[in-house]
Amino acid sequence: MSRMVVRRRITRVTLGEQPQRREDRLAGEEPLEIRVGGERLGITMRTPGHDDELVVGLLVSEGVLTSSDELIAIQHCAGPGVRAGDGDNVLDVTLRDPHAHHATRARGMLMSSACGLCGSESIDAVARMSRFRLDSDDTPIAAELLVSLPATLRAGQRAFDSTGGIHAAGLVDLASGEMVVIREDVGRHNAVDKVLGWAAMRGMLPLRGHALVVSARAGFELAQKATMAGVPVLAAVSAATSLAAELAEELGLTLVGFLRRESFVVYAGAERVRIPSGAAARGELSA
Amino acid sequence: MSRMVVRRRITRVTLGEQPQRREDRLAGEEPLEIRVGGERLGITMRTPGHDDELVVGLLVSEGVLTSSDELIAIQHCAGPGVRAGDGDNVLDVTLRDPHAHHATRARGMLMSSACGLCGSESIDAVARMSRFRLDSDDTPIAAELLVSLPATLRAGQRAFDSTGGIHAAGLVDLASGEMVVIREDVGRHNAVDKVLGWAAMRGMLPLRGHALVVSARAGFELAQKATMAGVPVLAAVSAATSLAAELAEELGLTLVGFLRRESFVVYAGAERVRIPSGAAARGELSA
Repeated sequence: MSRMVVRRRITRVTLGEQPQRREDRLAGEEPLEIRVGGERLGITMRTPGHDDELVVGLLVSEGVLTSSDELIAIQHCAGPGVRAGDGDNVLDVTLRDPHAHHATRARGMLMSSACGLCGSESIDAVARMSRFRLDSDDTPIAAELLVSLPATLRAGQRAFDSTGGIHAAGLVDLASGEMVVIREDVGRHNAVDKVLGWAAMRGMLPLRGHALVVSARAGFELAQKATMAGVPVLAAVSAATSLAAELAEELGLTLVGFLRRESFVVYAGAERVRIPSGAAARGELSA
Repeated sequence: MSRMVVRRRITRVTLGEQPQRREDRLAGEEPLEIRVGGERLGITMRTPGHDDELVVGLLVSEGVLTSSDELIAIQHCAGPGVRAGDGDNVLDVTLRDPHAHHATRARGMLMSSACGLCGSESIDAVARMSRFRLDSDDTPIAAELLVSLPATLRAGQRAFDSTGGIHAAGLVDLASGEMVVIREDVGRHNAVDKVLGWAAMRGMLPLRGHALVVSARAGFELAQKATMAGVPVLAAVSAATSLAAELAEELGLTLVGFLRRESFVVYAGAERVRIPSGAAARGELSA
């Protein structure tokens, strides 16, 4: 078993029954220190595994990277201040442009990249950072595909079944309908960063013709991540926040929430969603 | 309606039916800039409301504050760099000790206060920061009270029913069994900070004889927050992570997860949990 899932003794209490001491499986959580060119950028709690993807995805979300060409190396490292045995939790990224991350540091990396003090300024900040335009991507997504995504995501989760407490994100190729990658993490933002990092390392950005699916809610930061990676569709199992919906509308992201077996809510970008022709004569939704 | 809940036009799609355009209510989300003595500490996305409590709770979680005596003022502010109309989203805290927050800045406020690069170092960092000891608080908590908490929390949520997408945290007085405060936020960490800030502003820290309840999962950072505020019990509706369980065991926090109507899991600190005498002869659990 990897450090993704950790065994621990727990006590299970059921009213009216004898308490049971038994072994359980918990979602693994450990700190990861992120360095760029040897300089500490921050520490984040995450589920170990796919750390390189996590860091690349985070740098994409923050506007530092758009492709693997801008990366020279990513390595778990020993080095100044790294004790023996800690190396697994320190990742150092070498960028082709050694100053690429400085603007991000100034903005307050890992807190919120949005500088704005009201919602619309936060959205403007993402628009300024993003090198990709979503509104030029008119790939449609079928309602039948959307409602199938939670089950596909769930089926692909390795750690959820054993722990019941880990988030997942997946990337769907809209042409084939295939889920091309699924990543899990105790943090939903991390799960998304791992997926976007996986794609960036394969030169797939901007992710035109894809949808990003998350097992959780969709807040501003997830909508930001989708936008920064050029994914035109973000679909969430739970609700979206007000600011995620505003960002989606402003920047041309299709934002879907409350994904159920037969229904969902479209918060923005409904023009990409195709519904079965029996239901609506025009075969598409008006925005 | 406050900015806690925001109305928006959405499209509801149900397979086999005509899509419906209608008004929906979304969880409000806006950025909040936190300043201490006029100096920017960071920006966090949050649901507007109880911002003063959020900031005080965050400062408690980071080891900067333990009581309202250390606070001179908290105000939404105009000032350098604050545009007209943005003041609601900028909060400036004046501390009695103007340098109290400097160590926190150095540790990387709002990312993770844990300096350690492996899990046990993160736990040591919390132990060093905390001014309160949980292991001296042996207030018991009844299993019947624990299983009742999710319904009490849910009943007290104002924004969840309308939005379906907001987290809640509550504080329970173990002597009376009463839920003394409930706060909601799109971020579960924020909801907990608001509750702890509410208590700190009333001089209630350390929160001996109380339990903190959360509508979500319990990760390392929530366990850290409980520890820093001196709450001996953290009870979560969903799973706990491996590092939250380790922290709880090391620092004497009772950590409960998967709270259901008739059952729950105890990850650590089972000695505080009292179960009905019919089920276990000794009336308490062995750890």
